[in-house]
Amino acid sequence: MLDVCLLGTGGMMPLPYRWLTALMLRSQGSSLLIDCGEGTQIALKEKGWSAKPIDVICFTHYHADHISGLPGLLLTMGNAERKEPLLLIGPKGLERVVGALRTIAPELPFEIQYHEIKEAEEELRIGTYVIYAYRVNHNILCYGYKVSILRAGKFQLEQAEQLKIPKKYWNRLQKGETIVDGEQRYTPEMVMGKTRRGIHVAYCTDTRPTDSIEKYAKDVDLFICEGMYGEKEKEAKAKEYKHMTFGEAAYLAKKAQVRQLWLTHFSPSLTHPEEYMEEVRKIFPRAKAGKDGMSTELYFIDEEV
Amino acid sequence: MLDVCLLGTGGMMPLPYRWLTALMLRSQGSSLLIDCGEGTQIALKEKGWSAKPIDVICFTHYHADHISGLPGLLLTMGNAERKEPLLLIGPKGLERVVGALRTIAPELPFEIQYHEIKEAEEELRIGTYVIYAYRVNHNILCYGYKVSILRAGKFQLEQAEQLKIPKKYWNRLQKGETIVDGEQRYTPEMVMGKTRRGIHVAYCTDTRPTDSIEKYAKDVDLFICEGMYGEKEKEAKAKEYKHMTFGEAAYLAKKAQVRQLWLTHFSPSLTHPEEYMEEVRKIFPRAKAGKDGMSTELYFIDEEV
Repeated sequence: MLDVCLLGTGGMMPLPYRWLTALMLRSQGSSLLIDCGEGTQIALKEKGWSAKPIDVICFTHYHADHISGLPGLLLTMGNAERKEPLLLIGPKGLERVVGALRTIAPELPFEIQYHEIKEAEEELRIGTYVIYAYRVNHNILCYGYKVSILRAGKFQLEQAEQLKIPKKYWNRLQKGETIVDGEQRYTPEMVMGKTRRGIHVAYCTDTRPTDSIEKYAKDVDLFICEGMYGEKEKEAKAKEYKHMTFGEAAYLAKKAQVRQLWLTHFSPSLTHPEEYMEEVRKIFPRAKAGKDGMSTELYFIDEEV
Repeated sequence: MLDVCLLGTGGMMPLPYRWLTALMLRSQGSSLLIDCGEGTQIALKEKGWSAKPIDVICFTHYHADHISGLPGLLLTMGNAERKEPLLLIGPKGLERVVGALRTIAPELPFEIQYHEIKEAEEELRIGTYVIYAYRVNHNILCYGYKVSILRAGKFQLEQAEQLKIPKKYWNRLQKGETIVDGEQRYTPEMVMGKTRRGIHVAYCTDTRPTDSIEKYAKDVDLFICEGMYGEKEKEAKAKEYKHMTFGEAAYLAKKAQVRQLWLTHFSPSLTHPEEYMEEVRKIFPRAKAGKDGMSTELYFIDEEV
């Protein structure tokens, strides 16, 4: 199961009625945050979720509205007596930018680890999460993220019995271990069925539509995509500032055949995103305008409740 | 007239129901802000006040809860197309700390000027404001501020006539100019009466009680003082972390004979400051527990409405 919360839906600047865009994911006691603008820690607290179990923070880019909340969040995690290391992931410059911001948060009771993304596409396995970073197209270096919870195949009991694999090894094989017992060598493949569909969330803000987004959003359970402007007439402005209109995001969702689309990162001038959703749903029906604190639980297919 | 707004009343970390402590002053179209933690720009917008006319920001010290909102505020002021320079005032390290934070706000359409406080007490005249910075006692270098709007004496019409000062110079003399006309030299002192009482606000957070606070809070119209803890029993903790209890703040107010006291910078664990105010008012009756967005207008004595 994966808990998903869109903590805020604003772009550029935080507003009294709209937090800055950030996404929080929770699975098996480990939380992952994407972006952390001014106020993200308050949005999180408002939601009733804790900052302490955040093990990973991914940054799309280093415009202030996506990272200015970091020093405060780090201190709050410190005050909550987090001891475990925190991994930060982001484009080139990560350590320099975070280092600068830590001028006002120099002392923390936990270690900060850095992973700077160097390639156009990267895959990382961090605990329960598989994180795919993919380059998008903004006016500074910017990445989108896909986060997956993978799911192994089913344990094939009959096959295990047939191959006479000792019962004491079953559990370890199921966990992916290869076991050597004397001359015998047992591998997970011998007893595990075909990999099953996992849970997949794709996220991008501050970008024009790109092939990379389509590739990583392909068939995901939830696609969270920026929609800076509601009006179709603002496409020229969207192109100039390297953002998207709602319509462009909807076309992306349609091409990627995602299961559900949430729009976010609204311009401060866009006060009623809902007004544009009818048009969006003509392009892609399973679309929602994001709302601060909007959340859902995503399950493995046969676990759905 | 001086507009005063206590934008937030929290210490340490911003909470869903409490912004971080910051004070905004407005007079004659020029705004002055003291401290700027995460979310201060949202609190300002919630109040309906604009960030654009902020000409001066004073920092008490560089703990994150007093400065983490700066990059976002600067960008918002830039987005509002501010062009005039902005003066930042703060303890030693100002340019280094702000420079580091500007890593995420590098491009602004206005100049930033710095005044680093070097002495234990300093006085600055910036436009309509007279700003007094005074060293207080925290676990890092920290200053309190007194902000005054001074008021000249009344123009002495009879005296001007008696001294045969040409009428065309009256206005300039009233504004403080000295005029030389041939062999004649006219000075403001010749026509201006005794200086009248101005408007005075003193502010301090993150400190133990000090003589400097008492000196600068002496007889002010409004004294805004930290009160991290409500309970008298927390005096030991207050001493350890270099903060104050409500009672200690009230004694300070009493000794300084201020006209009004507002408490602020409450610990996140202090959810109902009001509960402790009865005790506070036994020490100093004209005391209020600060509330986010609490504001007042202070007038010159005979201008009161």
